[in-house]
Amino acid sequence: MQHGDIVLTYPNFSFDIKHCDSKTQARIGELKTPHGTIETPNYIFCGTKASVKNVSPCQLKEARTDIILANTYHLMLQPGADLIEKMGGLHKFMNWNGPMLTDSGGFQVFSLGEGTMANEIKGKSNKGYDNKSLLSISEEGCVFKSYFDGKTIKLTPEYAMEIQRKLGADLLMQFDECTPYHVDKEYTARSMEMSIRWGDRSLAEFKRHDNGAQAVYGIVQGGVYSDLRQYSAEYTKDRPFFGTAIGGCLGGSDQEMYDVVASSTPHIHPSRPVHFLGIGQIKDVFRFVRLGIDTFDCVIPTRLARHGTAFMKGVRGETINLKNAKYREDNTPLDESLDIPASRDFSKAYIHHLLKANELLATQILAQHNIATMNKLMREVREAIKSGTLDSLEREWLV
Amino acid sequence: MQHGDIVLTYPNFSFDIKHCDSKTQARIGELKTPHGTIETPNYIFCGTKASVKNVSPCQLKEARTDIILANTYHLMLQPGADLIEKMGGLHKFMNWNGPMLTDSGGFQVFSLGEGTMANEIKGKSNKGYDNKSLLSISEEGCVFKSYFDGKTIKLTPEYAMEIQRKLGADLLMQFDECTPYHVDKEYTARSMEMSIRWGDRSLAEFKRHDNGAQAVYGIVQGGVYSDLRQYSAEYTKDRPFFGTAIGGCLGGSDQEMYDVVASSTPHIHPSRPVHFLGIGQIKDVFRFVRLGIDTFDCVIPTRLARHGTAFMKGVRGETINLKNAKYREDNTPLDESLDIPASRDFSKAYIHHLLKANELLATQILAQHNIATMNKLMREVREAIKSGTLDSLEREWLV
Repeated sequence: MQHGDIVLTYPNFSFDIKHCDSKTQARIGELKTPHGTIETPNYIFCGTKASVKNVSPCQLKEARTDIILANTYHLMLQPGADLIEKMGGLHKFMNWNGPMLTDSGGFQVFSLGEGTMANEIKGKSNKGYDNKSLLSISEEGCVFKSYFDGKTIKLTPEYAMEIQRKLGADLLMQFDECTPYHVDKEYTARSMEMSIRWGDRSLAEFKRHDNGAQAVYGIVQGGVYSDLRQYSAEYTKDRPFFGTAIGGCLGGSDQEMYDVVASSTPHIHPSRPVHFLGIGQIKDVFRFVRLGIDTFDCVIPTRLARHGTAFMKGVRGETINLKNAKYREDNTPLDESLDIPASRDFSKAYIHHLLKANELLATQILAQHNIATMNKLMREVREAIKSGTLDSLEREWLV
Repeated sequence: MQHGDIVLTYPNFSFDIKHCDSKTQARIGELKTPHGTIETPNYIFCGTKASVKNVSPCQLKEARTDIILANTYHLMLQPGADLIEKMGGLHKFMNWNGPMLTDSGGFQVFSLGEGTMANEIKGKSNKGYDNKSLLSISEEGCVFKSYFDGKTIKLTPEYAMEIQRKLGADLLMQFDECTPYHVDKEYTARSMEMSIRWGDRSLAEFKRHDNGAQAVYGIVQGGVYSDLRQYSAEYTKDRPFFGTAIGGCLGGSDQEMYDVVASSTPHIHPSRPVHFLGIGQIKDVFRFVRLGIDTFDCVIPTRLARHGTAFMKGVRGETINLKNAKYREDNTPLDESLDIPASRDFSKAYIHHLLKANELLATQILAQHNIATMNKLMREVREAIKSGTLDSLEREWLV
């Protein structure tokens, strides 16, 4: 592997590992950014288009949220990075003054256009690039059609970093190709090698404008192939990334996903924060903190809310669906222990009614509840790692 | 006019007129209900289906809301009055512990089915009963088809009062026929007389179950015909209603609406609270407090929010539309003086972006802002009535 010759010091960022579990790779970290320090493991909530869907920044804080993300792909199309920069950057624009992450835009461009990313990343689609908006991929970058206004846009590693610089989040992602499920090993290998070159170009572009305000993560690719994952992980370790992200296709089953991560994490930089891109059900949190994952992100807390679904501690399948007729006369709240209005002040019967009546307030209530529940999960997971009781905590959450 | 022989005392309610304007009929009142006392003139926000659209009770309070209403028509169809009674009544069900009003259901049944009421009440439609869900009207009541599940439902004065009793709001409305615009005087007169008989039946049914927890308003009908309005007003004065509402068709122009109200108010009971049903733009508030209106209600604060529109003090036409391209780079908030996050913490540029990106948070922000603005209007109107400065306040709001 060719060594990079770029030096980056990230003077305003740090990641300190405070405690390691004796039986697993689980760990407690302190991730410092210019917008605050968070304890890890932690959950990063998706504010895709500079808004966590129907949850205001006040409500995020009330739900004890530490960190959120926004998507470069969506924001470059509308309202555009230049406008956000002119408005003072993403933090000011959306009125979130805590730590924030942006992705590179690659994931959405490659796997999805504007669509359902979860199926792709989890290998539930086997159509390869079934993406009419993606026009071409080359060494230089990729060309796609904007879902917003139909314009043709070229996204390169340099441009992805420029956009992220203008957006102004704390934590950035290198540009990479996110290969779909069921592509063969040869394609995956060539793609992973190109992502490595794109990673070096991302770092070079980042370095050119580095003013200490941001830090960049490298992304481990390699599909479901453990030797490719290992190679890609070693690359990220070798380069001056601040953190490491696990990206790309993770296989078609829980076991395959586990194996992919397990084949990556031993080879990544042991003292850098590790982010798991796009994954974050409750069961995932328990499985993957044990492999050393420090942060998770997933759209499901707010997406499930829009479908009437609430995350709950200690229920079969992690969630309940408030549309279910059995909640019609259920006078109990979602979770009084969360001590926020959404979870404490409304009965399940009322939320059931709001859903049947197509009232937007249902989404607002459920989204805030789901976020608060995930934050409670992460607090309890951190406590359990400190006290060595992760196994018993998992039995409390997942019955 | 035949005198009613029902006596109702409303021991837990009162309306005290604290101050009368020297030049107009404007007045300051104190309206006491079992769920609190509000100062009038005041604005009643629509929680149609037991939810003010995308605004939580906390957010209503933050916006300094004193009183809300819910619609009998919608709630009788879903989730049903029996369920709400079983859940402890509307206040508990929707977690609003302040004063609340319900209408009788008649307005929606007659003029609308599930549709745009504003056009009908303001005479902007001249189709008469263009309402496929209304099946028949007779002395007994009316029969209509539920928009929710297609069931045929008979609504009578007795049933309307039973439903409102089960819903459990503080202030109720008699059942009445709400005639559409452009029906002739003969039909309007016969309808108004039937509404009078329905009013007596409403009172009799109310009396049967009266436990002091609720109070009922009579409704002045009579279309655009001043002699009919006068007759109907005298009727409500003669009967033991707690308050008086101005209902029905109000004409096709601002002048006609003014004349209809002006021909009603001199004949209603002078010491009872007067509610103006379904009307509540800023200009309406200024015009009609001068005729002695004490409370207004209208869906527009939340409806306009869903269309990207914000009520503003001192702008031409009362509102601005944040979808307008001129707000794309406008870094100013909606109204810092309101001191709530919605009006203070987000730039117009951000709200413009949220609207373009179809983000629900835009609705949440604008709805809370519009409600807070209307509450600010009402506070300032009350101060101006006390200090005799209504004219100059109107010039500040309506430029």
